[in-house]
Amino acid sequence: MNITRLQAKLESFAAERDWNQFHSPKNLAMALNVEASELMEHFQWLTQEQSTELGEDTRKAVATEIADVQIYLLRLADMLGIDIEQAVTEKMEENRAKYPAEKVRGSAAKYTEYQD
Amino acid sequence: MNITRLQAKLESFAAERDWNQFHSPKNLAMALNVEASELMEHFQWLTQEQSTELGEDTRKAVATEIADVQIYLLRLADMLGIDIEQAVTEKMEENRAKYPAEKVRGSAAKYTEYQD
Amino acid sequence: MNITRLQAKLESFAAERDWNQFHSPKNLAMALNVEASELMEHFQWLTQEQSTELGEDTRKAVATEIADVQIYLLRLADMLGIDIEQAVTEKMEENRAKYPAEKVRGSAAKYTEYQD
Amino acid sequence: MNITRLQAKLESFAAERDWNQFHSPKNLAMALNVEASELMEHFQWLTQEQSTELGEDTRKAVATEIADVQIYLLRLADMLGIDIEQAVTEKMEENRAKYPAEKVRGSAAKYTEYQD
Repeated sequence: MNITRLQAKLESFAAERDWNQFHSPKNLAMALNVEASELMEHFQWLTQEQSTELGEDTRKAVATEIADVQIYLLRLADMLGIDIEQAVTEKMEENRAKYPAEKVRGSAAKYTEYQD
Repeated sequence: MNITRLQAKLESFAAERDWNQFHSPKNLAMALNVEASELMEHFQWLTQEQSTELGEDTRKAVATEIADVQIYLLRLADMLGIDIEQAVTEKMEENRAKYPAEKVRGSAAKYTEYQD
Repeated sequence: MNITRLQAKLESFAAERDWNQFHSPKNLAMALNVEASELMEHFQWLTQEQSTELGEDTRKAVATEIADVQIYLLRLADMLGIDIEQAVTEKMEENRAKYPAEKVRGSAAKYTEYQD
Repeated sequence: MNITRLQAKLESFAAERDWNQFHSPKNLAMALNVEASELMEHFQWLTQEQSTELGEDTRKAVATEIADVQIYLLRLADMLGIDIEQAVTEKMEENRAKYPAEKVRGSAAKYTEYQD
């Protein structure tokens, strides 16, 4: 996924519609949460098992919501001058250091304790 | 950003820790929302203007939360077999058809009506 | 629960600290979501069964988050001049009309379709 | 607001429709977040000033969403055996101790630091 190109497209899309005025980081963070919640709505009454085998209509709707979350995440990062790819790489390294496999494995029951 | 490679790394990371058992789409959608909310928390008491000029500490914390959202989004899409890049491309085309620039421009006050 | 009295106390609490300037409905809606998410965080990796039998520490932490959500909901309704109790009564009547028991019962598998 | 009576009504409502099977605390926490987010959606593109003066249609829609959040909060607390009113009272006392008015007042700019 070419992040820079997508962000440029999203910037043009907003500029052509005079929407940049609405895209403060504060507002984009809200919009991101609203979309993340619409994504979650599809799963709220399902069992975990059911959530692994979505029907075709739900799966398509979920894909659209995933796109919405990704779009607002790209836009927010762009407005803040944050490099998503670098942030992900650093966070993954941090997680690797924080949760050593040999220490964590086998204490699945304590999974939540390893989370922040 | 090489999505497939990142998703493979996240899969290994979970497998090495016996964490795949927790990664149902239902749970991942919840985790995604929790991270999106931690991201939003940094902006909740700021004015829109303040949200455009974060201090260095906040900006770094925000970058970490953006990474967390991206990581869970990648993982969720992977578990559901959804191609994020394709979903984003399709959604952007859909938005382009739904909000024609010439029609939308100048009715900024009605922005919310154009949103779903 | 005496809603009016609680709202008056919350108003005094904010006024004494010069915090009313932060309590726009927009900001309060954000804070409500952040607290609702902190509440959800306790459940994200649990099975549905586990979520019915919380340990004492988690249960106490959950009670605190429930209080936070309730406090921001009271405050938001107050700032908007919305009567929560009346809104709840009306919504429950609406739900009763929308989901007739005899029609809904037995189609549990279709539960999600009855939800908006 | 008579919390106990409302919770009894909500319990009957769910029982009559065979919906208790869906109302695990985990699921209710998700539903609460989805409703809180639908509430927030009305404010996402507004300025803070605009959020204080909603049009009549938006205000009515917001009242309905506030009711939804309150309903799920009552239901969740009931399923967990948590006394909302007591939790709110305790949290307000805690906040009073944590943020002494004389200390907090005048450092409005540092408001976020006082929040957890």
